[in-house]
Amino acid sequence: MENNTTPKPIRCKAAVSRAPGEPLRIEEVVVAPPRAYEVRIKIVCTSVCHTDVTFWRMKGFPAVLPQIYGHEAVGVVESVGDHVEEVVVGDVVVPSFLAQCGDCGDCESEGSNMCGKLPYKPVGMPRDGTTRFTDAEGAVVHGFLGGASSFSEYTVADIAHVVKVDPAIPPEKACLLSCGVSTGVGAAWKVAKVEAGSTVAIFGLGAVGLAVAEGARLRGAGRIIGVDLNPAKFEIGKRLGITDFINPKELGEKPVSEAILEITGGGADYCFECIGLASLMADAFRSSRNGSGKTIILGVEMQGSPIMLDSSEILRGKCVMGSLFGGIKPKTDIPILVKRYLNKELKLDEFITHEMGLHDINKAFDLLIEGKSLRCIIWMDR
Amino acid sequence: MENNTTPKPIRCKAAVSRAPGEPLRIEEVVVAPPRAYEVRIKIVCTSVCHTDVTFWRMKGFPAVLPQIYGHEAVGVVESVGDHVEEVVVGDVVVPSFLAQCGDCGDCESEGSNMCGKLPYKPVGMPRDGTTRFTDAEGAVVHGFLGGASSFSEYTVADIAHVVKVDPAIPPEKACLLSCGVSTGVGAAWKVAKVEAGSTVAIFGLGAVGLAVAEGARLRGAGRIIGVDLNPAKFEIGKRLGITDFINPKELGEKPVSEAILEITGGGADYCFECIGLASLMADAFRSSRNGSGKTIILGVEMQGSPIMLDSSEILRGKCVMGSLFGGIKPKTDIPILVKRYLNKELKLDEFITHEMGLHDINKAFDLLIEGKSLRCIIWMDR
Repeated sequence: MENNTTPKPIRCKAAVSRAPGEPLRIEEVVVAPPRAYEVRIKIVCTSVCHTDVTFWRMKGFPAVLPQIYGHEAVGVVESVGDHVEEVVVGDVVVPSFLAQCGDCGDCESEGSNMCGKLPYKPVGMPRDGTTRFTDAEGAVVHGFLGGASSFSEYTVADIAHVVKVDPAIPPEKACLLSCGVSTGVGAAWKVAKVEAGSTVAIFGLGAVGLAVAEGARLRGAGRIIGVDLNPAKFEIGKRLGITDFINPKELGEKPVSEAILEITGGGADYCFECIGLASLMADAFRSSRNGSGKTIILGVEMQGSPIMLDSSEILRGKCVMGSLFGGIKPKTDIPILVKRYLNKELKLDEFITHEMGLHDINKAFDLLIEGKSLRCIIWMDR
Repeated sequence: MENNTTPKPIRCKAAVSRAPGEPLRIEEVVVAPPRAYEVRIKIVCTSVCHTDVTFWRMKGFPAVLPQIYGHEAVGVVESVGDHVEEVVVGDVVVPSFLAQCGDCGDCESEGSNMCGKLPYKPVGMPRDGTTRFTDAEGAVVHGFLGGASSFSEYTVADIAHVVKVDPAIPPEKACLLSCGVSTGVGAAWKVAKVEAGSTVAIFGLGAVGLAVAEGARLRGAGRIIGVDLNPAKFEIGKRLGITDFINPKELGEKPVSEAILEITGGGADYCFECIGLASLMADAFRSSRNGSGKTIILGVEMQGSPIMLDSSEILRGKCVMGSLFGGIKPKTDIPILVKRYLNKELKLDEFITHEMGLHDINKAFDLLIEGKSLRCIIWMDR
């Protein structure tokens, strides 16, 4: 389709969620043309992130069924709506679940990646709240995260949620930068601002936790301690900079925080919680150094429990920080990560453990849930 | 007494606490000579801080009766023990409840004011845990906070807890820098690092809260919102930079955080909790801006309750920080504050609301507890 023709609806395949926690169904859907400030993207590949699993399991809002999940992806611009000047048909782009309008005070501030004009919204297109998807019977199918909905051969995203990237990066690598790996690397780089020679402790070595290790390695951390119940994680962790491994099962009665206080001689400079358990967040906090320790919360608390912090401990000069997307400003920072990958500084290949086609997406979900995969790449043309 | 004579015990007056929450008794005490790394100080004046009140009320450890409280003070070095080279007899000094040994990794780090060699200890001399005080009958009287114990005409402090200051600063102003005012100014300067043009909200306008305002004013904050139940605090607050005042009693059903989100268009850049209530800490956190808001905890939680933070809210790029002494490194930063006062940049006079002699110290306690004073100066020679 050419840029100068009026885009038409497209019929294509998508994996649709119709009941919470039940297998996604590969269906034919219709993807409407992009409206103003929107871009229609032909997805090349996508990967499955824990956030997809979390929404897929939810019974009720913000999950709105039927819905198309998926938000870690890369694709090619197929058509653009009015007022889109930033990309043209054929550009390689990754969708981002956080917007960057570029104009608001938050986008202009160096310290924030939370666009104030188009705030984070789990469902509906950001400017009008509607969807661009219908099913074969013409019924509404809801979109996801600013129009990511990448478990579909085509999707429509708001231009504020689209990042143009250097096409030199292989698609399966670019796709990782769309969410999980950027979140971990960004947490070490943009949120914690890990200093050279410092000590880092990472609670949970999934893709995000391992990406924190990679980010800390790039920042020159002196010691990177990984905490995980699965000893297999240490092997891959070593390649991404982890120097010490703690398996809580092997500590007996001793709390993890005590082991970390011992190894680091008083606490780690940076502690990252990458699981989403309030009790682990408190443990990470206890593991951080008096006077200057920072605890960075990346996990989304699974039960919605509040974080409880000892009020006397925080007075000893400790800090707890959180972020969405690791403080990454999508349009500013993802291209920097692409460049660092192309310069052979940032490691991405290690995160890809499986590759398959869209028809196998439920297998990809199972692998992630069982802790057997880090990232499974779903290719649309397989 | 000369530097080259061997110091003898000194008999002098002190306000001794003998029962929790009961009036201090002005007694004759004996102050032993300084041991190695110690300094005996003739107190010129001292002021009463909420921490004194907190310890005075405590039933049991870390309060150890009988005990001499007081830690905001200024005095003159009367004699020194072995290995003291930093000060000589006649030097004007302020005691600091936090040590700065200057040698350990924490003292050498820019980000920490928690000396790792002589960590914060509420009772006993830092190196041997003993006391330099006995009463008229020769029985032990316990010291306080690294040897501050400034409710006494003479006291002995560890050299790591002693800061030499320019004698050009009037004693009643220097004394304020020993704890409360430095804590507030430091929180804005060293912990939050308030940026020019930013918005600040301060919960509780006692001396520490007002000192936060003064610190934020010095850093060029654009808008400083003060929250207090006492409308009289707005008048003094205005002179220290407060631009907006919120009295929670006048808001009806509306939570303070909602009022702050409205005034600031989405949350304050920096929120300071200066009271010590877990519920207020949570409210301060809710009042901070998505994406970059920092909440700084200065109050010591009165009931020892944990701070509870909404785990989804922290993911929106918020941060909670705490500190003792506002991140101030005593020997490095107090002289800077003295200089800024002498340069007429830092305001201190506004914090002094009352002055009296040691025999009136219980009146000074009452004034502080009733919220009628900011700082009451106790002069030893009155």
